[in-house]
Amino acid sequence: MPRYRITIEYDGTGFVGWQEQASGPTVQAAIADAIYKFSGERVAVKGAGRTDSGVHALGQVAHFDLSKEWEPFRIQEAANFHLKPHPIAVVSCSPTSPDFDARFDVLSRRYLYRILSRRARPALDQQRVWWVPTRLDVDRMHAAAQSILGLHDFTTFRASLCQAKSPRKTLDALRVSQVGEEVHIEAVARSFLHNQVRSMVGSLKLVGDGKWPPAEMKAALLAADRSRCGPVAPACGLYLVEVTYPSLN
Amino acid sequence: MPRYRITIEYDGTGFVGWQEQASGPTVQAAIADAIYKFSGERVAVKGAGRTDSGVHALGQVAHFDLSKEWEPFRIQEAANFHLKPHPIAVVSCSPTSPDFDARFDVLSRRYLYRILSRRARPALDQQRVWWVPTRLDVDRMHAAAQSILGLHDFTTFRASLCQAKSPRKTLDALRVSQVGEEVHIEAVARSFLHNQVRSMVGSLKLVGDGKWPPAEMKAALLAADRSRCGPVAPACGLYLVEVTYPSLN
Repeated sequence: MPRYRITIEYDGTGFVGWQEQASGPTVQAAIADAIYKFSGERVAVKGAGRTDSGVHALGQVAHFDLSKEWEPFRIQEAANFHLKPHPIAVVSCSPTSPDFDARFDVLSRRYLYRILSRRARPALDQQRVWWVPTRLDVDRMHAAAQSILGLHDFTTFRASLCQAKSPRKTLDALRVSQVGEEVHIEAVARSFLHNQVRSMVGSLKLVGDGKWPPAEMKAALLAADRSRCGPVAPACGLYLVEVTYPSLN
Repeated sequence: MPRYRITIEYDGTGFVGWQEQASGPTVQAAIADAIYKFSGERVAVKGAGRTDSGVHALGQVAHFDLSKEWEPFRIQEAANFHLKPHPIAVVSCSPTSPDFDARFDVLSRRYLYRILSRRARPALDQQRVWWVPTRLDVDRMHAAAQSILGLHDFTTFRASLCQAKSPRKTLDALRVSQVGEEVHIEAVARSFLHNQVRSMVGSLKLVGDGKWPPAEMKAALLAADRSRCGPVAPACGLYLVEVTYPSLN
């Protein structure tokens, strides 16, 4: 069966997350429904990142199979037509190898976390940023972030309900920068544990507002103890930005 | 009476515009109500730009008088508290001269217009950008924009219901640039006619997609004929970004 790969942008606010669940609307189901409406086929849409409730995506990647051959551009157009009025858009579609797996073939996932660091709450970016009404020391946060790069047991920054087999992951990048009134935190790894980015961000925020010395970031990591994590940052500031694969796909 | 100057950010989507009108919610009324709630005073809030229905602001400026002296930070905090859940935020507040007039003392107004130029509709930026699903030639648009800078009769780019005494205005800047998937158009002038930015943007879009030769921009301007204007661009892409005043204020 022909396999297709799509790149998807969505506003996660009104969804219980990417994946089909017992209750509540999911991004995955909305896309599968749209594909059904133009193709008449019930497909499994497999995504690279199982984003949580309220988490957004600029570049989620997924694959699915259709028994019929379709022009990829027609799939994109028809899916976007039937996805209305959901805040989900298929931004590209291409044919791919029947062996391509959007989840297991991933080389890297890149997330962006946006903090609005100012006294006044957001007007235009409600549900798009984490509003932190205190000043954050970005240089301090960035230095602390560099101390946890590499291969580690990330138990401290892992949700208790995480289903990953191992808490050992390699964190490739964790960059903190000031962008106007916002603090941006960019995280790159082949894969992340459940809530890992939001757990790291919540802890870095404590470094930024002075509650933690920068060295506490590494100490908390090495303790491999969930109780050493800062309060988990809210979902609304998190974006799955990019997923990369070996070039042959 | 002490006079205060505030800078305001808002999402214009749910409002009939800045100014109090016969019917529908206005940004001005929401702010006046919030000031009343903490001060007990009914004030006139005078804004620099009377933004239309659906137009956003990152840096609208307004002034008002209170009979009592207030700590400016307390005004900001109390106004923001009472403005909830409106998507309006007071981002700064300062005492100002009793002679200061947020509307008549303006040196320059700067607007940004955001066009999302791609095939897929926006997911995260619904009501934040004008979605144009065709490719736009930004260099061509920028060149055409430069041809209408300076002092002119802008009748062509003026809404028929515009109440300005004269159609003669000086356009200081009109810059078109590509920012990722978006085309940004930045317009700067001391003052604009009603719908002038959206009229210029709608016409530039015709230059960008090839329907107008670049020279038509200047020709349409010189005709001083409203019927020569392109279709007016929608409100949702427009932002009042910054208002400047003589430095003594």
